[in-house]
Amino acid sequence: MRIVALAGGIGGARFLRGLKAAVAPGDEITVIGNTGDDIHLYGLKVCPDLDTVMYTLGGGIHEEQGWGRTDETWSIKAEMKEYGIGPEWFGLGDRDFATHLVRSQMLTAGYTLSQVTEALCVRWKPGVRLLPMSDDRVETHVRITDEAGTRAIHFQEYWVRLHAAVDAEAIVPVGADTAKPAPGVLDAIAAADVILFPPSNPVVSIGTILAVPGIRAAVASAAAPVVGLSPIIGGAPVRGMADKVLTAVGVETTAEAVARHYGSDLIDGWLVDSADAAAVEAVEAAGITCRAIPLLMTDVEATAAMARAALELAEQVRR
Amino acid sequence: MRIVALAGGIGGARFLRGLKAAVAPGDEITVIGNTGDDIHLYGLKVCPDLDTVMYTLGGGIHEEQGWGRTDETWSIKAEMKEYGIGPEWFGLGDRDFATHLVRSQMLTAGYTLSQVTEALCVRWKPGVRLLPMSDDRVETHVRITDEAGTRAIHFQEYWVRLHAAVDAEAIVPVGADTAKPAPGVLDAIAAADVILFPPSNPVVSIGTILAVPGIRAAVASAAAPVVGLSPIIGGAPVRGMADKVLTAVGVETTAEAVARHYGSDLIDGWLVDSADAAAVEAVEAAGITCRAIPLLMTDVEATAAMARAALELAEQVRR
Repeated sequence: MRIVALAGGIGGARFLRGLKAAVAPGDEITVIGNTGDDIHLYGLKVCPDLDTVMYTLGGGIHEEQGWGRTDETWSIKAEMKEYGIGPEWFGLGDRDFATHLVRSQMLTAGYTLSQVTEALCVRWKPGVRLLPMSDDRVETHVRITDEAGTRAIHFQEYWVRLHAAVDAEAIVPVGADTAKPAPGVLDAIAAADVILFPPSNPVVSIGTILAVPGIRAAVASAAAPVVGLSPIIGGAPVRGMADKVLTAVGVETTAEAVARHYGSDLIDGWLVDSADAAAVEAVEAAGITCRAIPLLMTDVEATAAMARAALELAEQVRR
Repeated sequence: MRIVALAGGIGGARFLRGLKAAVAPGDEITVIGNTGDDIHLYGLKVCPDLDTVMYTLGGGIHEEQGWGRTDETWSIKAEMKEYGIGPEWFGLGDRDFATHLVRSQMLTAGYTLSQVTEALCVRWKPGVRLLPMSDDRVETHVRITDEAGTRAIHFQEYWVRLHAAVDAEAIVPVGADTAKPAPGVLDAIAAADVILFPPSNPVVSIGTILAVPGIRAAVASAAAPVVGLSPIIGGAPVRGMADKVLTAVGVETTAEAVARHYGSDLIDGWLVDSADAAAVEAVEAAGITCRAIPLLMTDVEATAAMARAALELAEQVRR
């Protein structure tokens, strides 16, 4: 079976680990990773979501933190502070830097981000085929208003420096309108037997992937059933600050509203948490088959059960 | 008093530390640093000699090693090995990497190496004005013949990987013929009250600086006395493998031969070690005033005594 999953960072990566544990031998998983979080720091190209997937599935992630490397050292960060060079709010450990150095050196040499990602995965062996959504530069910016006025800042600055404490007025995936899907992305969607939306951020992770021209249409017209898992439980994001960016795009922070936001033209099935069982009827009224199951990714087994439920729902909604 | 010193890496840096201890308050030291050892690694510009001077005078050097940073960590090097990306033979610690990241980012942004060096020195406060010999790329290559045939390799590969164990057939400062002295270099030489050649490598350190068009002529025609200190004691280099590169340019590994190699058109005074007192007469016969004193830089005080002797000799040969 060929499974395609669209994925952001921490939530997506943890779901994929459960998915790997749930699938049968021989099943193939292709991950289309969000690159809208990418940022250039110290002259290097940093791809937080791709790396989080790669490190998590490859056994190099800092487990508690959810991002960055295990057994990390922070010498460069300390030195940058001595040099007075920021941003101090973005944590890049020394081991992590090595990845960005390798990536940046390959990009400068003319390789595409797809090729670089494939090369990095030779080491990490994530057990999935990891594709960036696009080889073109896309950068999610957030419009805010604070004492400095109204302005657009990089998503990482909004998320990591400001902790989304300021209201997001708009989310703009800069460059997405002219970006092309990376090689293999549309083919994988077209050839998929199942397409999954992990409980990633619907706006700045999966939403950004869908904003690359051609990807949304490919998912909508795919022969495969499309099943998503709600990142919202009981009216709040399980992790992160999705409520802030949902509000910016006019979507309520509920499992039902996110399902309607994707819409029945895009998704066929939707899993909500048992706590949101009351939402099942309303989601189904929107033309999306819905089930309520436990959706907390407390460990790999619990996450694998979620993945199995998603795959079962896909069979139920298969046309 | 305005003192100009041409300097390579470890030997030059240690001499400069002694010189700083020897000069009077208000004396100004300008260091013209060799950049022929520079190498591009992992997409970054690495300037080993400039950094060794900067770290040594700024209090960040690994004392025993003579190069690199104190309290260093090696996470990136370990990661690069995991990625299968070399060269393994070149040791760049994590703290050191920060310097190369800052430098490379500034160079990419359009700043010159002079400007970058000045910016880095804002942190390091070396107590001297550190100028690269040139803002243009110059790279010392070494012609060797081994089982792979006759070929030119980067000086760092010859020195660090091969430990100069293969004969050097020629030393070529690639790019030197079209390089221009960095801003301030010729002015500093012209305005100097004393010009010093520390006991750096006469071929690949000071020789490379002199190979930048205009610098040799400026030193030769400078009003200031020029005094050098022999890096050769008792027929062998105190440190490093200068004998290999001296042989490549047809110069014997003796204190006298190095003085003659510089020549009386370039240097006015020459200090040899007490062990080479017998060479004084021959050096003076070549038109260079010569003194024999202890030349081992065992500690800062011993090195300061060498610097004082060099400054005294400069007064004696002042025209």
